[in-house]
Amino acid sequence: MSPKAKARPGGRSARVQEAVHAAVRELEAEQGRAKLTVPAVAARAGVTPSTIYRRWGDLHELLSDVAVERLRPEEPPSDHGALRADLTAWARQFLDEMASPPGRAYIRDALLGDPDGSNAGQCSAYAAGQVETILARALDRGETAPPADTVMDLVVAPMMYRILFRPDPLTAEYADHLVDTALAAPDESA
Amino acid sequence: MSPKAKARPGGRSARVQEAVHAAVRELEAEQGRAKLTVPAVAARAGVTPSTIYRRWGDLHELLSDVAVERLRPEEPPSDHGALRADLTAWARQFLDEMASPPGRAYIRDALLGDPDGSNAGQCSAYAAGQVETILARALDRGETAPPADTVMDLVVAPMMYRILFRPDPLTAEYADHLVDTALAAPDESA
Repeated sequence: MSPKAKARPGGRSARVQEAVHAAVRELEAEQGRAKLTVPAVAARAGVTPSTIYRRWGDLHELLSDVAVERLRPEEPPSDHGALRADLTAWARQFLDEMASPPGRAYIRDALLGDPDGSNAGQCSAYAAGQVETILARALDRGETAPPADTVMDLVVAPMMYRILFRPDPLTAEYADHLVDTALAAPDESA
Repeated sequence: MSPKAKARPGGRSARVQEAVHAAVRELEAEQGRAKLTVPAVAARAGVTPSTIYRRWGDLHELLSDVAVERLRPEEPPSDHGALRADLTAWARQFLDEMASPPGRAYIRDALLGDPDGSNAGQCSAYAAGQVETILARALDRGETAPPADTVMDLVVAPMMYRILFRPDPLTAEYADHLVDTALAAPDESA
């Protein structure tokens, strides 16, 4: 079990987490990434380094947790009144954010300090949650919608694969093309 | 520029690389991953630690290079006489290898010690090369074949996304389903 699994929500544990995450964000903004160390983060957060090591294991695991927090969507996807418009707008925004230099750094951090895969799973769950909101709205409108897994496989996965593995420039047209493919895929929903 | 970009093929440089890669593989097999250090690898390879630091930067970059070597396909994809059979067999084998514990560890290593993205790009190029071989054979037989990018987006990307981001079990049927989707996608080839 990863050390961070011991963290409990609420009370002192939550206050320590908030202070340490804030310290990472501040120090990174002020001094840049290369200068981040556990002792420096601890001093800024007003905790001992051993508190950080006990809870997060090492700097990579702490940075992974901070990255996942930053990848959490801030609001539900915007509603444009139709499935294709909603999905296209969301895919363009997702690609824009994730392919940006900070987005790439957060994805990398999230994967790097994540020995049990829980943070990577959380990143995927955030994207799946947004997709499910869009698909549920479409069904409420009486539109036909593909299953969420189809959108994850045909829209989200190719964008993330290219961000991680291929140096090609990524454009809004590429996001549009993936949405077209997903909406043309054989309908497997009930 | 990454330190490893200074390496030149052939001669002493190639011998050092081979000895250091072999030392990593041997020590990992004998003592496990957690015991790998630059001094231990250097001692086994018969070079100085500074040779390794100069050429690879740090242990993560060395492990990334070793991982990419291990992800290099050993032979062209097998020929089953038809596009669907070739692609299905290749996708099943790719998923089986990449989703295995060693496969996951190599993918992770390859991404981790890869500041300029060149090793991740190499992993993708290996997969693309195999896919292109399969598609070229199909065209030679007179079959219709989707473009390689379609297969990368609809078959390779979803498998890699799930391996990295989703904890779901991955089955041969999932690989088959992705191939079905790719072969049913609108044909964009000329």
